Amino acid sequence: MRDTFSDLQRSDLATLRAAIRGGAYRGHTAGLGAGYLQANVVILPEPWALDFMRFCQRNPKPCPLVGVSETGDPVMRTLGRDIDIRSDLPAYNIYRDGRLAGTANDIADLWTGDMVAFALGCSFTFEHALIRAGIPLWHVENDTTVPMFRSSIPCAPAGPFRSMMVVSLRALDADRVDQAVAISRRYPLAHGGPVHAGDPSDIGIADIARPDWGDPAPLLPGQVPVFWACGVTPQAAIAAAAPPLCITHRPGHMLITDIPEDAEVPVLAQD
Amino acid sequence: MRDTFSDLQRSDLATLRAAIRGGAYRGHTAGLGAGYLQANVVILPEPWALDFMRFCQRNPKPCPLVGVSETGDPVMRTLGRDIDIRSDLPAYNIYRDGRLAGTANDIADLWTGDMVAFALGCSFTFEHALIRAGIPLWHVENDTTVPMFRSSIPCAPAGPFRSMMVVSLRALDADRVDQAVAISRRYPLAHGGPVHAGDPSDIGIADIARPDWGDPAPLLPGQVPVFWACGVTPQAAIAAAAPPLCITHRPGHMLITDIPEDAEVPVLAQD
Repeated sequence: MRDTFSDLQRSDLATLRAAIRGGAYRGHTAGLGAGYLQANVVILPEPWALDFMRFCQRNPKPCPLVGVSETGDPVMRTLGRDIDIRSDLPAYNIYRDGRLAGTANDIADLWTGDMVAFALGCSFTFEHALIRAGIPLWHVENDTTVPMFRSSIPCAPAGPFRSMMVVSLRALDADRVDQAVAISRRYPLAHGGPVHAGDPSDIGIADIARPDWGDPAPLLPGQVPVFWACGVTPQAAIAAAAPPLCITHRPGHMLITDIPEDAEVPVLAQD
Repeated sequence: MRDTFSDLQRSDLATLRAAIRGGAYRGHTAGLGAGYLQANVVILPEPWALDFMRFCQRNPKPCPLVGVSETGDPVMRTLGRDIDIRSDLPAYNIYRDGRLAGTANDIADLWTGDMVAFALGCSFTFEHALIRAGIPLWHVENDTTVPMFRSSIPCAPAGPFRSMMVVSLRALDADRVDQAVAISRRYPLAHGGPVHAGDPSDIGIADIARPDWGDPAPLLPGQVPVFWACGVTPQAAIAAAAPPLCITHRPGHMLITDIPEDAEVPVLAQD
């Protein structure tokens, strides 16, 4: 446990991955692996994989697929040179029959020959781009979790996977909204452009002071509430489908890949 | 057979689809359905579907997935209000054990309860954008088929699906290459930016005068050969995998969808 967060912020990817793999670091990954794509993770038995993959393909804004393992192969070959999905997340959630049943820091004992791992892009990528453009994000500056809400926007169903879209809220100064839309649309693998800007009730949200997940954030004078599709959506779809076993990252504890954040496609060059 | 090509060019999508569905039009779709996304189509039995979908996910430049059917459901619900994949292409190729075994204009007699249909974006989308920007394309102006080549660029394999990337060639004036790169990168669901510009031998192409598919096109003085990932690539991967049955569009005879060509995501809004 010698690795501290600030040491890891300065580490190369190999050192960072070794600290996570060995259990020396079990914390969140926001601010780590700067410049590299991070991903939400969903692991399912193969009989559920095709339907889940169709759910992602049909709902690319909440569920932007950036990598899928071979069945039974824990190595995410297109996302890095050495990523073992059983050990390379700081923390995992374990769902049985769609309900959270436990957590773990390593899932080697749960991995079987019929598991398929999915990696989905996350909002860190477009948030970094907004911050680089000088657009402040309250939850980042105040070290809270972005507020998230169940919306009334339906996802396209696929087999047993169905859900309303979960959205995250960032309050932006009115004169920066167009710029934020243009910037985030450049990152289709990180939720792309917002799904709504303006009155929360238009998308079924009664009270932005009471998020369904994450922490509340203020709407300051002159600001507009801007909503993006959120990577929590697949968790809602998994709750609906209730597969016997499903393993995900623990929220905020993402997979750090070897793919640069600005890559056109999330695939390591083949040799 | 009263519908002529020039009549159909002026038709709305419903009329165009009815003419194709009823067999009144069996020709190519270049120049039809202006402004709407067209797609390559691959239909496979479900036991091959997950591996093929992984092949597409890992090779998004040659194989940009824009739609996937439910198993056994011939209606492509996310791509249109009324698309029946058994009848709504002007012509189909039928492959058995990876080899072309016949053609058809309707595949209702081959569709079974375990079939999955995949739609993949095609180059028409970025070609339209290049033409709108005033970048001339020789094969369009001369009504020939774009020249295509087997390259030495490996695709990421998935199960039995493996192939080198097939690329298409467009010769561009040297001072327009950067603009063409920027424009085509805006269309990740239509092959995105080029995979190579310059010496063809860098990507294993010995002689651009002798394409593997399509027609030769000249390289005029001051022009640079620019290569894009090509939708023929999955056909090469299917030949390698040799599934017992596979049905595709006949080249040039694409699926015309209800999705606008400039849509951020290729998914009809859910009600």
